[in-house]
Amino acid sequence: MNIADFKTSLDLHAVGQEMYQLITELYPICRSITGDGFRESLRIIKQYIPLDVQEVPTGTQVFDWTVPREWNIQDAYIKNARGERVVDFQKSNLHVVNYSVPIKKKVSLTVLKEHVFTLPEYPDWIPYRTSYYKDNWGFCLSHRQLLELIDDEYEVCIDSSLEQGHLTYGEYYLPGKSSDEVLLSCHSCHPSLCNDNLSGMALAAFLARSLRLLSLRYSYRFLFIPGTIGSITWLCLNENQVSKIKHGLVLANVGDSGRSTYKKSRRGDAEIDSVAMHVLQHSGQDYEVLEFSPYGYDERQFCSPAFDLPVGNLMRTPHGRFPEYHTSADNLDFVQPPYLTNSFAKCLSILSVLENNLTYLNQNPKCEPQLGKRGLYRTIGGAEGEVDELALLWVLNLSDGNHNLLDVAVRSGYPFESIKRAADLLCEHALLKAKPEV
Amino acid sequence: MNIADFKTSLDLHAVGQEMYQLITELYPICRSITGDGFRESLRIIKQYIPLDVQEVPTGTQVFDWTVPREWNIQDAYIKNARGERVVDFQKSNLHVVNYSVPIKKKVSLTVLKEHVFTLPEYPDWIPYRTSYYKDNWGFCLSHRQLLELIDDEYEVCIDSSLEQGHLTYGEYYLPGKSSDEVLLSCHSCHPSLCNDNLSGMALAAFLARSLRLLSLRYSYRFLFIPGTIGSITWLCLNENQVSKIKHGLVLANVGDSGRSTYKKSRRGDAEIDSVAMHVLQHSGQDYEVLEFSPYGYDERQFCSPAFDLPVGNLMRTPHGRFPEYHTSADNLDFVQPPYLTNSFAKCLSILSVLENNLTYLNQNPKCEPQLGKRGLYRTIGGAEGEVDELALLWVLNLSDGNHNLLDVAVRSGYPFESIKRAADLLCEHALLKAKPEV
Amino acid sequence: MNIADFKTSLDLHAVGQEMYQLITELYPICRSITGDGFRESLRIIKQYIPLDVQEVPTGTQVFDWTVPREWNIQDAYIKNARGERVVDFQKSNLHVVNYSVPIKKKVSLTVLKEHVFTLPEYPDWIPYRTSYYKDNWGFCLSHRQLLELIDDEYEVCIDSSLEQGHLTYGEYYLPGKSSDEVLLSCHSCHPSLCNDNLSGMALAAFLARSLRLLSLRYSYRFLFIPGTIGSITWLCLNENQVSKIKHGLVLANVGDSGRSTYKKSRRGDAEIDSVAMHVLQHSGQDYEVLEFSPYGYDERQFCSPAFDLPVGNLMRTPHGRFPEYHTSADNLDFVQPPYLTNSFAKCLSILSVLENNLTYLNQNPKCEPQLGKRGLYRTIGGAEGEVDELALLWVLNLSDGNHNLLDVAVRSGYPFESIKRAADLLCEHALLKAKPEV
Repeated sequence: MNIADFKTSLDLHAVGQEMYQLITELYPICRSITGDGFRESLRIIKQYIPLDVQEVPTGTQVFDWTVPREWNIQDAYIKNARGERVVDFQKSNLHVVNYSVPIKKKVSLTVLKEHVFTLPEYPDWIPYRTSYYKDNWGFCLSHRQLLELIDDEYEVCIDSSLEQGHLTYGEYYLPGKSSDEVLLSCHSCHPSLCNDNLSGMALAAFLARSLRLLSLRYSYRFLFIPGTIGSITWLCLNENQVSKIKHGLVLANVGDSGRSTYKKSRRGDAEIDSVAMHVLQHSGQDYEVLEFSPYGYDERQFCSPAFDLPVGNLMRTPHGRFPEYHTSADNLDFVQPPYLTNSFAKCLSILSVLENNLTYLNQNPKCEPQLGKRGLYRTIGGAEGEVDELALLWVLNLSDGNHNLLDVAVRSGYPFESIKRAADLLCEHALLKAKPEV
Repeated sequence: MNIADFKTSLDLHAVGQEMYQLITELYPICRSITGDGFRESLRIIKQYIPLDVQEVPTGTQVFDWTVPREWNIQDAYIKNARGERVVDFQKSNLHVVNYSVPIKKKVSLTVLKEHVFTLPEYPDWIPYRTSYYKDNWGFCLSHRQLLELIDDEYEVCIDSSLEQGHLTYGEYYLPGKSSDEVLLSCHSCHPSLCNDNLSGMALAAFLARSLRLLSLRYSYRFLFIPGTIGSITWLCLNENQVSKIKHGLVLANVGDSGRSTYKKSRRGDAEIDSVAMHVLQHSGQDYEVLEFSPYGYDERQFCSPAFDLPVGNLMRTPHGRFPEYHTSADNLDFVQPPYLTNSFAKCLSILSVLENNLTYLNQNPKCEPQLGKRGLYRTIGGAEGEVDELALLWVLNLSDGNHNLLDVAVRSGYPFESIKRAADLLCEHALLKAKPEV
Repeated sequence: MNIADFKTSLDLHAVGQEMYQLITELYPICRSITGDGFRESLRIIKQYIPLDVQEVPTGTQVFDWTVPREWNIQDAYIKNARGERVVDFQKSNLHVVNYSVPIKKKVSLTVLKEHVFTLPEYPDWIPYRTSYYKDNWGFCLSHRQLLELIDDEYEVCIDSSLEQGHLTYGEYYLPGKSSDEVLLSCHSCHPSLCNDNLSGMALAAFLARSLRLLSLRYSYRFLFIPGTIGSITWLCLNENQVSKIKHGLVLANVGDSGRSTYKKSRRGDAEIDSVAMHVLQHSGQDYEVLEFSPYGYDERQFCSPAFDLPVGNLMRTPHGRFPEYHTSADNLDFVQPPYLTNSFAKCLSILSVLENNLTYLNQNPKCEPQLGKRGLYRTIGGAEGEVDELALLWVLNLSDGNHNLLDVAVRSGYPFESIKRAADLLCEHALLKAKPEV
């Protein structure tokens, strides 16, 4: 079965519900760029797809970077003088600055405030903060919590560990007819944040689960990695394999109610760029296309100048453009099944175009073939009707070996599927043949 | 004499009247893609230009197509039970579906209706329908005629023949200095339809008659052919000659009151495309430029991928965009001499640009030459006046061997004629020389 | 010191005042394309920069032109019958058609009028007229003066000489690290006209005076030449040197209150074009960019097809677009110090971009380098703040050897200075190296 038929056969609504269910299951876990929370998350995803889990030791040099010590955390709190937990990690893992060093001591309110982050403009939300590469400790509070702290002595406790260990990531390689690869990557290192990026993880997992059932032209590689250090580590360990990546998407923020957004690869004119733009354009829904910039998610690494991979970024609302971004408000209410469904469907459409975007050769390139004698043409001429023959004529006219089907779709204005159907029909009648791929 | 001077010397108004007269003479004839109506039309055009008439036998294989049996028709009617002709081919040859097989029998109204075409939205107009490649018969009626048919027994008679014969076409080759050719083609297979395409036939005939009088750079080839099968036949029989075609225009629908329309060649950036757009842009009249699409007239064949000839399409209102299209309302009222004149003048302008669009070499390319000492410059400096010297300066500045005169015209914003006059003046003063053509 | 630092250290306001002072000093002198007025002007400029003064003999063949006889003038007037000077060269040197042959005779008003130029639409202004290449004489009057002339006999006297002599021009060559040159040229042949082009002369002189103090990548060549014949003469005498000119600007009309205007070089995509447009775009002020045309100032010669030098034209209001152009109203009121200052600052910015527009190589092109460990990155992650790291990331991402810093600035949208600062910082940390120039 091909992707388009598969998509038609699916109960997309149910897929959205399942993705949301997976997000719900992953939500409470305290993930970071290393540690048991990351491992636990991969274990859950393994229930959907046979993920390979890689462990890269602390201290491994990866290009300009070093794999950091592994961070784990059991508990954390701020207790007031009466011994009450006024801030409690058990209530939200966002309360601790991610990668905080262990600490247990008594501090005055003044000292405490130097280690506290809040969002005064959203007094009920807890911000998300990290300190991966500088030893530090801190707490994130709602601003309301901060205002309630009286001048008192506080016990701060972060029961974390920063030790020799591993950086963990998940990889799933799905072989297709060709060893040419499509890369689908999602950062999986954020704690209780739903859109960024449990949504991307769920989308990648369900795409992988779906593609496994299909006959594929390309091989597919799914990466569930910690942001930045994960893609750097993967690229370093797989440097001699990256040339197989012919197309790629970073998946992030795919569950909110905003319109779909595609950020182009550094090349700007890669096939994935044309494909994604075509699918969004013909979706009948609002969308936005962003030019590449070297800020964002792991496309920063995939598109670094020595690699310059054709990897774009599919999102709904981009990072930093929604106030809930990197706060406790990026929660289970902020992402919803219909939006997950919509992102999933668009991804399938993008992959379907990629899979089918072959170049064909018109077998009868001197003048038009006689479509009528093959039953491909209305037989009473003279009336100017709805001509779906036009799609046939476009395919025939442009199948000179220099235009792939997407080129035909773009120049003709037809959606890819119509052009693909026309090409299939012409192949059936031996008027068209796929050009051998080199 | 060159084309521009010839155009100035002409009584264009009279040419429009003569074209209209030719259309009037051709109008009553029942043409089809083969047969005596086509031959009779060529005989009339031969009164204007020494057309070669080619006859290609039925059954000749032309690429994917076969030259069909020849169709001729003497009479056709529908008689009611009282023996009255309620539909009569003698009143309009559109009443018979073109290429109808012979038939003579009695049918009920119900059966008759299965073979009848009307236009309910234009109840007084007779549609034009064909069935070239599938044996069938039918009548085209005004919708008012259909509504008047009572439940009765009708005698239907089509006194036609479909037999071994020939496909006929007319060709006129006018040699110029170069064997490089300009192709001017018009489909000539429609019965009593004036804009589509008696107007194109008249325009081609009068262009040919005019160009015969002139000294020409290019050779010109005029084709009066049946649509689709005619261009396919011609291309097949002349396959090894087509590379001589450097520019071409398909002429169709050139007599209605709409604005001029140019449809680009498949290449989209051929010289004929730039020339036609330049002429329309500087015409001072409204116009439209359409991108190539593989639907339309014989450019479909000339621009098929194996040929990809630089052939555009000059029209007024494109096919299918006027309600009278392919109906009895495309009659002698729908085309008018002034519009024919206008199309003729624009064609002459296009051909004039083509003829004169040489590349020149500035003979004094280091700094400007001193125009003043040659009388080419106002002598009192300092005033910012109307500078037609500017055209001279543009030609000098861009005549580096990489820009033809049209390039100069486009970059400078001048009309081609001004740039051409400037180039002529500079040539007279030995400041410019035509670059030898390879 | 580099240009940007120098610009910051300058009292730009004072420079504008000094430029205006120089214009004031040059204003009364009667310049022409040859003669003592031109020499006297160069002598004054030599007080600022060590100009080389070249003298090219009358009769020297320079391409298609010949160096004309030298013109000098002592006095000129029109006296009425009562012996009163009704038009007096001593009051304005514009009163004499520049290059008038000597004359002294009595003429009727009718004859006089054949030699008189006025501007009826600006009755108080004296026009500026020349007759360099055709022997003639004439007077330029305010229209009011003309109207006051009664029917009388007039004595016309032009005490001029047209003799074998020289064409004079000034040249200043400032060597930099590279023998690649930046050309800065101004026509210096107009009499009492301030914007056109004492402003350009003052700007060139003060740019030269400033650049002398600096360490420069490029060598700089300043030309103070008579318009047209001067650039033709210079190009002819230096034909084998012109390939050293990598960038150039013609400076003219830089002292009026209009917005800055940049006219592109003939190439249209030369580096100087991109640089000038970038500087104007980021100036925060209104500006205009004009496409090249072969009319204007000496760019006409520098951009003639055999040279096609990358020379643009920096102005404020272009010639012919202000009514004061080539009239006595282009006076010391029409140019003002703040506009001169503004033009000077923009020129320095343009030259600063040119000087610094190198191509760099990312020394760590595989993924991003770890900016944090070098103190180049905020250390608490998660907050979406003002990221000036983004400039660092853009430089790193595009420093693949194919993009110079201006390319990075244009693609990122940053002003060049921000990108330059980012590149400097990355160089300090050995993350970037300038690509060796070939």
